[in-house]
Amino acid sequence: MIVNGKPYRTIWLHPDNNSIIQVIDQRHLPHKFIIEDLTTLEEVCTAIKEMHIRGAGVIGACAGYGMYIASLEGKKNQVSNIQEFLQLAGKKLKATRPTAVNLEWAINRQLAKITTLKDDINSIVENSAKIAHIIAEEDVDFCQNIGKHGVKLIEEISQRKQGETVNILTHCNAGWLGCVDNGTATSPIYEAHGKGIKVHVWVDETRPRNQGSTLTAWELGQQGVNHTIIPDNAGGHLMQHGLVDIVITGSDRTTYTGDVANKIGTYLKAVAAKDNNVPFYVALTYSAFDWEITDGVKEIPIEERDPREVKYIKGLHDGEIKEVLVTPKNSHAANYGFDVTPARLITGLITERGICEASSEGVFSLYPEKNK
Amino acid sequence: MIVNGKPYRTIWLHPDNNSIIQVIDQRHLPHKFIIEDLTTLEEVCTAIKEMHIRGAGVIGACAGYGMYIASLEGKKNQVSNIQEFLQLAGKKLKATRPTAVNLEWAINRQLAKITTLKDDINSIVENSAKIAHIIAEEDVDFCQNIGKHGVKLIEEISQRKQGETVNILTHCNAGWLGCVDNGTATSPIYEAHGKGIKVHVWVDETRPRNQGSTLTAWELGQQGVNHTIIPDNAGGHLMQHGLVDIVITGSDRTTYTGDVANKIGTYLKAVAAKDNNVPFYVALTYSAFDWEITDGVKEIPIEERDPREVKYIKGLHDGEIKEVLVTPKNSHAANYGFDVTPARLITGLITERGICEASSEGVFSLYPEKNK
Repeated sequence: MIVNGKPYRTIWLHPDNNSIIQVIDQRHLPHKFIIEDLTTLEEVCTAIKEMHIRGAGVIGACAGYGMYIASLEGKKNQVSNIQEFLQLAGKKLKATRPTAVNLEWAINRQLAKITTLKDDINSIVENSAKIAHIIAEEDVDFCQNIGKHGVKLIEEISQRKQGETVNILTHCNAGWLGCVDNGTATSPIYEAHGKGIKVHVWVDETRPRNQGSTLTAWELGQQGVNHTIIPDNAGGHLMQHGLVDIVITGSDRTTYTGDVANKIGTYLKAVAAKDNNVPFYVALTYSAFDWEITDGVKEIPIEERDPREVKYIKGLHDGEIKEVLVTPKNSHAANYGFDVTPARLITGLITERGICEASSEGVFSLYPEKNK
Repeated sequence: MIVNGKPYRTIWLHPDNNSIIQVIDQRHLPHKFIIEDLTTLEEVCTAIKEMHIRGAGVIGACAGYGMYIASLEGKKNQVSNIQEFLQLAGKKLKATRPTAVNLEWAINRQLAKITTLKDDINSIVENSAKIAHIIAEEDVDFCQNIGKHGVKLIEEISQRKQGETVNILTHCNAGWLGCVDNGTATSPIYEAHGKGIKVHVWVDETRPRNQGSTLTAWELGQQGVNHTIIPDNAGGHLMQHGLVDIVITGSDRTTYTGDVANKIGTYLKAVAAKDNNVPFYVALTYSAFDWEITDGVKEIPIEERDPREVKYIKGLHDGEIKEVLVTPKNSHAANYGFDVTPARLITGLITERGICEASSEGVFSLYPEKNK
């Protein structure tokens, strides 16, 4: 997507030196646009762990490239047992964000090939580079397809409104910054915007980490998409007054029965959407599906994060990024990362293969190979 | 209530000079506890307008004392037409927060008496002091009664849970800082805490002005009430997992049919409470009732406030209160002050006269004199 008028992805190899990964360091957004070079496995681990990058798609891609960087390191240092070395590298990478499904998936995909190559280090380097590229390109491809399918929903609303602006509410950042390009929830929006359909996005600020008011607002602004940041509290009021035509969010994990784990607060928007007959869609690629669990609310474990993220807020003051304490110093805070929206509140899922009902029937209609 | 171990109200006359009003300047909370002297009508107007004090009860009380200060000013300056002077003072005061029902009500109550006293300035001063005291004492009395009625709900839950901690969720600050003492939504909580019932309060931070994470958390902490600050996004998740036994909020305006206008985000909690069978109560004194409007969602106008409140956040940095920009500089933001929760989502209203259904039948059962 576009940053300061130039096309970017969230991750790529350095154009002059393909042993360096470059990523957009998202910690400084929206205030500063900083590209970071990752030259060692250690640096890749830090970038994932400390959330220089975040979001399933880009984490997967970064893990893919991370395994490639590790194979380069193994070659350079002439390690005696390259297989053992890369297994260990995979373990280190997996440990950076233990709940990120895409991380594990990308690393396993690399290791599956690598193990067949024995101690042929040149072939390992070559193949891990190739697989890293494939993982990244697949993510781009899938996100583009989400856009192509999802845009039909926006088009329909636009036609029904006779070309008047379609108001879309989104929560958190399920944008291109969380993927390699395009994004999941944002992809239909960018597709619609590209087609000249009038859209306006209500951007939930998404406390406590403010991914909406920082990342989503920034990327929409860079593409010239009309948007308004709102406190997470406002969506219900907007829906009551007909100011939201459709809600589209992303998902961190969706059961094959259609229950959606996503950023904390998603459920509140879904239940309000139901109360106001506003269609509520979730955009995701197949890697976010959980094919084991049937009851998302009961079975998906919810990560509790550092209460500091609630008590302190970062922002720009006198040109510098500073952190302020908002709450009483001694008050406790709780920081649940996600919630689960039950399938009954979800109008449909937008995937790279099409749109389906949030139910096992719907999901299996798009992924019949998973229906065993 | 207690601050640093000493009992306070939010407003009182200076113990050594009864021509000075003293208030807790809430702009500095929770970081600094500052008492402000208000010695002129101008200062009273500024304190209300710029929200040194906020909340229906204390605004009403401050307006009452403001009229008394105005009468003192009239006496001191030997104004030629004291009636005209005080009518003008009332107008000035009313203009500070045009939507605050209690403000107008308190001023009209003062003026109704004052006009009968013609140019007897000493009697005017004496009577306006008396009425100001009565307004403040009534607020205290009403809030205490809300506590006495509302505590029964908490007691019942405590008994059902065999003495285990009762988890109460509240939104915004409907605490003693918004009243003269005790608060509305907090009054049953303080009453329960005082009786030794184990309570724990989930405090919604209440974006964008953070009244929950600053004011409510601070006042609960000062009384020693166990509490946890949560992002506004978290309540639904907590309800899904049985971690909320009851929701109690305040109200800025409630139709006699039971629709409740309150801080933006209240509706989202109410609709989630309904979805999870969590009882949802609203605590208010009679002055917050609107006896004209029947459909709150359609008819109550919703104030839009400065988008700066969404984009910038205040907090403590290096011992000083600073403001940081969270969002992209050029992104738009919207700042709706309130939303309306329809009566169908509300389990009951807790008033100074008792608890009733959120319906005209319920409200008239407590206020039969209003049923014309």
